[in-house]
Amino acid sequence: MGQERLHQQLAFLVEADKLKNILRRTLLTDGSRRENSAEHSWHLALAAMVLEEYAAAPVELARVLRMLVVHDVVEIDAGDTFAYDKSGNATKEERERRAAERIFGILPQEIGGELRELWEEFEEHATPDAKFAHAVDRIQPFLQNRPLKGGTWRIYDLSREEILARMDPVRTALPRLWPIVMEAVNEFFSNLHSE
Amino acid sequence: MGQERLHQQLAFLVEADKLKNILRRTLLTDGSRRENSAEHSWHLALAAMVLEEYAAAPVELARVLRMLVVHDVVEIDAGDTFAYDKSGNATKEERERRAAERIFGILPQEIGGELRELWEEFEEHATPDAKFAHAVDRIQPFLQNRPLKGGTWRIYDLSREEILARMDPVRTALPRLWPIVMEAVNEFFSNLHSE
Repeated sequence: MGQERLHQQLAFLVEADKLKNILRRTLLTDGSRRENSAEHSWHLALAAMVLEEYAAAPVELARVLRMLVVHDVVEIDAGDTFAYDKSGNATKEERERRAAERIFGILPQEIGGELRELWEEFEEHATPDAKFAHAVDRIQPFLQNRPLKGGTWRIYDLSREEILARMDPVRTALPRLWPIVMEAVNEFFSNLHSE
Repeated sequence: MGQERLHQQLAFLVEADKLKNILRRTLLTDGSRRENSAEHSWHLALAAMVLEEYAAAPVELARVLRMLVVHDVVEIDAGDTFAYDKSGNATKEERERRAAERIFGILPQEIGGELRELWEEFEEHATPDAKFAHAVDRIQPFLQNRPLKGGTWRIYDLSREEILARMDPVRTALPRLWPIVMEAVNEFFSNLHSE
């Protein structure tokens, strides 16, 4: 029984390795390749550690870190759904729910349940921890798009409204960073129109 | 002044992106490519969350997670030194010390100092948190080598003594997992000799 439990935990960790093959649309800052969801999750954890002081409401960093570490694990089955893909986003919830069932289900029940709850809390973005985690999840790709003259904003020809809606968690949960976002958005569209 | 501080924090996060281009010797479990140090760090954080109950001494998971998130950041300058590379390891300490100076030095002083101390604690592996973190850092590549018939053990023609010395933190800090390591090592060498 004890051995079975340990084998479930190790099997989950082997399964998690697959997240390194799930590609996001965001490029690395050097533009060399698309970012994968595992390294993205690491970068968010680091960003949460470094930006905690700017959270609009107090957060429990330890929970935020655990939430960020698991927040994309469902993509192993469900894939990364590009934030601006309307049809993909219509089916995202159901695909991810089934993925959560299978993937967290590999673990012993109480650990799997706990990780699943953290993931659900992230998805619902209702608590201060989840709101801060979401803002961090928006600011990190922003930082990678900036040196690439807009990066995915340019590549996928996004409108100002789409970008501002997507970045809105920064406005509400990391308000001190919002002027930096607005400045980059304004510069991006003024360069676009002067091209 | 406040704005300068924020810009230092964002500059550090942009710099950290480079860890995604630092390649380790370990392959992904599907053998498709070498793992990078950013996705490796994410995988360790997840492993710490899932294996905490097996730590030989009680650990503070929140500190362990922060330690694992920063433990490889110095590789941006110093590169990944293969565990079994003797000449590389002779110069590793000095290269990494200089890297820590520069990279953590991008941050506001007290945050940079705090992250640097976590990295130093990891490197010294004296505390229960650092010992557990080290054991996790050994078990994760082990899990990826296993489905690849030894992976780096086979590719770099390592001896039983080298592997057991490298894996020793698992024996001391994750003792419940040691029989699994020994079984895999025994099987690996018995297959080698029957080839």
